Amino acid sequence: MQSESIKAAKNVDQDRLWKRLMSMAEIGALPNGGVNRQALSNEDILARQRIIKWAKDLDFQIETDEIANLFIRLVGSNTSAPPVSTGSHLDSQPRGGKFDGAFGVIGGFEALEAIRCAGIKPESSIELIAWTNEEGGRFQPGVMGSSLFAGDISISDQLDVKDADGVKLKDALSDTLASTPDLLLRPFKSPMKAYIEAHIEQGPILEETKNKIGVVTGIQGLYWYGVEIIGQEAHAGTTPESNRHDALQTAISIIQDLKQLMHDETDTVRFTIGKFDCEPGSPSTIPGRVYFTIDFRHPEQKVIDNIHRKITPICNKHAGVCKVNVSQIIDCPPVHFDEDIMELIKTAASTIGHNHLLMPSGAGHDAGHISKLCPTGMIFVPCKGGVSHNELESSEPEDLVSGIQTLTACLVELANK
Amino acid sequence: MQSESIKAAKNVDQDRLWKRLMSMAEIGALPNGGVNRQALSNEDILARQRIIKWAKDLDFQIETDEIANLFIRLVGSNTSAPPVSTGSHLDSQPRGGKFDGAFGVIGGFEALEAIRCAGIKPESSIELIAWTNEEGGRFQPGVMGSSLFAGDISISDQLDVKDADGVKLKDALSDTLASTPDLLLRPFKSPMKAYIEAHIEQGPILEETKNKIGVVTGIQGLYWYGVEIIGQEAHAGTTPESNRHDALQTAISIIQDLKQLMHDETDTVRFTIGKFDCEPGSPSTIPGRVYFTIDFRHPEQKVIDNIHRKITPICNKHAGVCKVNVSQIIDCPPVHFDEDIMELIKTAASTIGHNHLLMPSGAGHDAGHISKLCPTGMIFVPCKGGVSHNELESSEPEDLVSGIQTLTACLVELANK
Repeated sequence: MQSESIKAAKNVDQDRLWKRLMSMAEIGALPNGGVNRQALSNEDILARQRIIKWAKDLDFQIETDEIANLFIRLVGSNTSAPPVSTGSHLDSQPRGGKFDGAFGVIGGFEALEAIRCAGIKPESSIELIAWTNEEGGRFQPGVMGSSLFAGDISISDQLDVKDADGVKLKDALSDTLASTPDLLLRPFKSPMKAYIEAHIEQGPILEETKNKIGVVTGIQGLYWYGVEIIGQEAHAGTTPESNRHDALQTAISIIQDLKQLMHDETDTVRFTIGKFDCEPGSPSTIPGRVYFTIDFRHPEQKVIDNIHRKITPICNKHAGVCKVNVSQIIDCPPVHFDEDIMELIKTAASTIGHNHLLMPSGAGHDAGHISKLCPTGMIFVPCKGGVSHNELESSEPEDLVSGIQTLTACLVELANK
Repeated sequence: MQSESIKAAKNVDQDRLWKRLMSMAEIGALPNGGVNRQALSNEDILARQRIIKWAKDLDFQIETDEIANLFIRLVGSNTSAPPVSTGSHLDSQPRGGKFDGAFGVIGGFEALEAIRCAGIKPESSIELIAWTNEEGGRFQPGVMGSSLFAGDISISDQLDVKDADGVKLKDALSDTLASTPDLLLRPFKSPMKAYIEAHIEQGPILEETKNKIGVVTGIQGLYWYGVEIIGQEAHAGTTPESNRHDALQTAISIIQDLKQLMHDETDTVRFTIGKFDCEPGSPSTIPGRVYFTIDFRHPEQKVIDNIHRKITPICNKHAGVCKVNVSQIIDCPPVHFDEDIMELIKTAASTIGHNHLLMPSGAGHDAGHISKLCPTGMIFVPCKGGVSHNELESSEPEDLVSGIQTLTACLVELANK
């Protein structure tokens, strides 16, 4: 590891990083310490304006693209070389935490400023990217900005997607782009030399094993299904059990059986019913329709394939007198990150003096899509109790700084290689 | 049975009854044949105006009261005697049928007109009542108008109740009363000589046993509970099973166990989870809160007491790492109708030539509360497939007419007794 890389890492400023994180957390702040800063909302626009202001103050180059991904560049000596990139997202869940996404963006910004403060002019440019709509809480699917940039989906398929209030993505996107009229639009798939994303772990493992740095080996496969059950609305007081077409009771039988299917002694399978809508929702009416989602994840394709082929038969098995429709919403195979990038992160962490652990990512991340464009990796830092997608999400300033020191060293090392 | 009673019954006009039912079903009509005519809504006001118009055309007396119950009177020869009353409700579930409630009101109106057409002046007045807010879909609790009239609840406790849009009952009520400014306000608990309510069965028994008339013996006990489960929102991809506080999975374990508790070989227990809300409702977030209702009913107090004392312990047993709060919302013991009224309905049905069946009511009805004020009974007619609280609710015109013939004979018999 070159001395310049370590020098840059030593210029990472804990206080500056924390203050910027807290400043960003003011935008969309919620009463219990979290944020509601959903993609392409007014809060998202304000967050962009705040980081653009900081970037302009430091004379970094700023560009955007058709989906409003934001690119902030510390220009290298070889301006024609593809940049070494870092990044994450500024959008949040409807009741999300201060650090999920924001840490990777504000931390990446701190890396750029630390390199500048160290007086280093890297050979390749180093770039921070704030990807649009990672969470997918407002407009589905999530990881939208990075999927579009990587060419995995097409923008024309996204423009008419609506949020819960009926607002179309194209209108929210157009408002967002109009708020930064002076920025150049970069084409999708612009080349990158490498990409490393810093993120809070969102799980309890680093905290429990007392490791500072998670060297992420890949992202587990993510599969979403929608299960719709059509029964028949009827009167709760007059309809005997034997005459009911009760969509809710059918849903419960299905979920009980799915729970058995997903049971795993090693506690590696992740199985969640996060959305469950019951209609018409009157206490004295037998539910005529239930819709629920299945989110299941695993790092191994073989396990995924085995579970996948059993889901629809289980749902149909319990249909009884109801009608059951199963649809697949997301089908994201496991991602394996670049071995050289993992080696580099391990070396950087060890050189700086942070213990580390190789670990897969439980959550999906923008890095998963970018891994198709260039050598990619991720750095995890601990978060309290593993709690995320929750207002109470929390991380220690010294743990955040360890992650950004490691990131900074890696970015400079790659840019000068 | 007096010949005048049978004469009145023979004047019931199937075509007139059906046309008025279809006219009422235009108000709040839904695409699949049902109605959305919730209590104290604009549709409810229009429904009242329509029946008031019909009553004025026939010179019936019209009054209302503080909760906007509507009283339409065919004046008898002894004007100081308490009236013999019939009635039901014009409000519907959000996606209700054309006949639930409306049949008892429009059918009661047809009874009054048939008596008039038969040239009969009964001794006591005969009165039709349209009770306000029987369904309770918009403002809880249901059977509100009849409970208030019977003195079972107090109006001051209801005025600040809000609907889902935050509209207070007192404001909706004030709009409703303002739409009939010329009507006298009658005090609650005004005396009645007797009360008989006609209603569709809302169950399959009359149809299956090929009986025309259900002589209702009483109303089964109705108990509602609210179960709130507080878990912890967390990331679906990163949180191992062993670290989860999953409110939805806890709810499912509770409901499975309740289902066993409620299991009944005789299919007499009615057990429904009609409302089930899951928060925050994001597919990738472990649910942090679930709220569901339990509606359970049985005709025997002993069975009810036995189930009641097990509900809270079962909910608590499955709490695990979540917090569970159980609250009782409704506590309505079984009602037994007057033996003489049952005998009268049987005699009237037999004399006219309709076969009949003694049966309890599965649903709650306004008659349940009025039974505390005077001798009370109910007449059921078949409905297709037992389907109710559903847009597809349906009844045959000839079955409806059988019910109103029986009702008319009973009303005249009681008024002249």
